[in-house]
Amino acid sequence: MTTKQICFADRCFNFAFGEHILESIEDYIPRDEFDRYIVISDSGVPDSIVHHAAEYFGKLAPVHILRFQGGEEYKTLSTVTDLQEQAIALGANRRTAIVAVGGGLTGNVAGVAAGMMFRGIALIHVPTTFLAASDSVLSIKQAVNLTSGKNLVGFYYPPRFVFADTRILSESPPRQVKAGMCELVKNMLILENDNLEFTEDDLNSTNVYSPKQLETFINFCISAKMSVLSEDIYEKKKGLIFEYGHTIGHAIELAEQGGITHGEAIAVGMIYAAKIANRMNLLSEHDVSAHYWLLNKIGALQDIPLKSDPDSIFHYLNHDNKRGYLKLDEDNLGMILLNGVGKPAVYNQSLLTPVRKTLIKEVIREGL
Amino acid sequence: MTTKQICFADRCFNFAFGEHILESIEDYIPRDEFDRYIVISDSGVPDSIVHHAAEYFGKLAPVHILRFQGGEEYKTLSTVTDLQEQAIALGANRRTAIVAVGGGLTGNVAGVAAGMMFRGIALIHVPTTFLAASDSVLSIKQAVNLTSGKNLVGFYYPPRFVFADTRILSESPPRQVKAGMCELVKNMLILENDNLEFTEDDLNSTNVYSPKQLETFINFCISAKMSVLSEDIYEKKKGLIFEYGHTIGHAIELAEQGGITHGEAIAVGMIYAAKIANRMNLLSEHDVSAHYWLLNKIGALQDIPLKSDPDSIFHYLNHDNKRGYLKLDEDNLGMILLNGVGKPAVYNQSLLTPVRKTLIKEVIREGL
Repeated sequence: MTTKQICFADRCFNFAFGEHILESIEDYIPRDEFDRYIVISDSGVPDSIVHHAAEYFGKLAPVHILRFQGGEEYKTLSTVTDLQEQAIALGANRRTAIVAVGGGLTGNVAGVAAGMMFRGIALIHVPTTFLAASDSVLSIKQAVNLTSGKNLVGFYYPPRFVFADTRILSESPPRQVKAGMCELVKNMLILENDNLEFTEDDLNSTNVYSPKQLETFINFCISAKMSVLSEDIYEKKKGLIFEYGHTIGHAIELAEQGGITHGEAIAVGMIYAAKIANRMNLLSEHDVSAHYWLLNKIGALQDIPLKSDPDSIFHYLNHDNKRGYLKLDEDNLGMILLNGVGKPAVYNQSLLTPVRKTLIKEVIREGL
Repeated sequence: MTTKQICFADRCFNFAFGEHILESIEDYIPRDEFDRYIVISDSGVPDSIVHHAAEYFGKLAPVHILRFQGGEEYKTLSTVTDLQEQAIALGANRRTAIVAVGGGLTGNVAGVAAGMMFRGIALIHVPTTFLAASDSVLSIKQAVNLTSGKNLVGFYYPPRFVFADTRILSESPPRQVKAGMCELVKNMLILENDNLEFTEDDLNSTNVYSPKQLETFINFCISAKMSVLSEDIYEKKKGLIFEYGHTIGHAIELAEQGGITHGEAIAVGMIYAAKIANRMNLLSEHDVSAHYWLLNKIGALQDIPLKSDPDSIFHYLNHDNKRGYLKLDEDNLGMILLNGVGKPAVYNQSLLTPVRKTLIKEVIREGL
C-alpha cells in the first residue's frame, strides 16, 4: 500500500492505493469526520463493487447508495439535481461526504454534486477503473455536458480523499486497463521521468497486471502529473502538455463514434503528432519510433487501421475547438508537439505550436 | 459617481455606482475584453431597464438578452441549464461575459450560470434594486434552490465588475428600497461606523431618496460589509454578524408566507434579538431603543403586528437550520446577539450565543 499527499496549490488530500485498501479507510478518516456517506455510482459500475465499497464506509457512519443511469447523455445538471434531491432526502448535510465509486463519469457527476451541495461538501473518490485511478482523479476539473457539447459546465473542486483498490482494478476488463495504459505511455513520452520504478519490459499487450504492478503504475502517474499540475491547477499553462495526442486523437474518437476507447484514440493521436513533429524537423526518427514501440508494447496500435476515412477525421478536427488547441487562422492549428521524448516543443512561450492544416491532412492520409 | 475596488481575499473587482453610471462603462471595460455580452434578467425586471442596460453593453460588443421566469420556484439548476444552452447557441465562449441585470434572484441565477460555463466565465452585476446594490452583490455566495430548500446548491464566485445606476434605483418602488434600508440599518447597528457620511436625519419613512443619497448609502454599505468580508469570504466566521436578526427574522418571513419582504422580516428579527439580549443582560434598554428608533425612521416597523401567530413563527424557528444559527441541544438555539450598538456578543470565540428556547418563545409572544 502507498499513501501520497497530493496538493493542487494549497488544497491537499491523501491518495491511498494498494490491494484491499478499502479495508484500511479507518486509518485515514477519523470516525467522527462525517456524519454519513452517500455513495454515488453510475449504472455501469458492477453492483458487487459498489456494495463492497459501501460496506467499508458503513463501518464509520451510516451509508446510502444512489445509482444513476450511465452514458454521456445522462451526464447533465439534471442528473446532478436528482442526486442532490435524493441525498438531501436521505439526510445529507454539511457534515456528509459524497463517495464517488466508479470511473471518470461517476467521478465528474458526483464531483459536481458534492461541489455544489451547501456550496461544497466533502468528496471522496473510489476510482474503479485504472484510467480513473491514474488519470481522472489527478485533476480537479469537474464538469457535465450540455446538449451543445461535452464538459461545457463545471468548476474546479478537489476531493478530500482518494482510495484506489488495485485488486478491483486488476480484475477489471483488459481493454479498460489499456485505456489507462495509453495515458501512462503518454506520461512516459512527454516528461523526463527519472528513477522509473518499472521498465518497459513490465508493459504487456494483454493488459493483465497484478495489483502490485498497477500500484507501481499509479505511483508513476501521480509523480508525473503532479510534477506539473500542483502548480498549474487549472491545466491551462504547463498542464496543457497532458493534452498531447488529444488534438487529432479527439477528432478520431468522434469520427469512430464509440468504436474505440478514448485511450486508444489518444494513442493514435500521439503517433500522428510525432509524425507531424518529425516532418517539421522538431522530432527525430528515433523518437517517432519510441512512440510506436511503447504503444505496441501495450497493444494500443492493434486493431488499427481505423474504420473512419481521413476526411471525416479532418472534419471533426476542424470543427471541435474544445480540446487543447487553438485556432490560429484559417491555415493553421495549434498543436502540442515534442522536440524529443520528455521535451515539449515551446513556441512563443506556449506549448501550442502552429501547424499547417495541409500537413495535418497529409499525415492523416498516410495513416499509421 | 464613485468607484471602489472590492476584494474578497485576492479576488478583486471594481464596483462603480452613481447616476447614469451605465453611460460610463467604456471607461471601465476595455473594448476587446469580451467578445460578446449575454444579458440575463428574470421576468420581474422591467423591460425598459433591461433594454437600457443592454444598449450600453452593445456599444462595446454584440449583446444578447435572455429572460427567465422569476420566482423562487424557478430559481433552479434547470433554469440555469436552459440559460446556458441558449447562451452557447448564441455563440457564448470563454471570452463572453454574462451580465446579470436585476435583483438578488437574477444575480444568483446568472452567477451560477456564469460560474459553471467553461468552468467559469466573466460575470458582471448590474443590480437594479437597492437591496441587490447594497447587499447581495457584496457577497460572492451564489446559489439556487432544491425542492427541499432554498439556496441549497451553489458555490462562491466573484463578479468581474459591478455597475449600479442610482437613477434606476431611485425610481424603483419605495417598498423595494425599504428592503435594502433594513439591511443598511442592520449595518449601522452591528458595526462601529466611524466617519459616517450621512446622519440619522437623512433617513426617512417614505423610502424615496435621490440618486445622490443612495450613492452615499451604497458607499456606506460597501465599507461596512467589506470591513468584515474581505477577510472572511465564505461568511462563516466574523461574517456571521451579517446574519443578525435573521434567526427569528427568517422564521417570520416563512410564517408570513410572502406577506412581508425579507428586509422587513429582518427588521422585526433584530428587534426580537435586541429584546432577548436585553433579557440576558447583554444589551442595555438604551440600545434596544436605538433599534426601535432607527427602524421606525425608515418605516420598517409600520404595518406590524404580523398576521402569523407566535406558535407558527416558533415552528419555523425550530425546523429551519439553514440560517446563521446552530442547534446546540434540545433547549437552546445559537443566536447572533449584541453587547451594545456596534459590539457583537462573543461566546466561546464564536458569534453564536446559546439562547434558551423558552426565552425566545416568551419574547415572541410578547410581540414588538
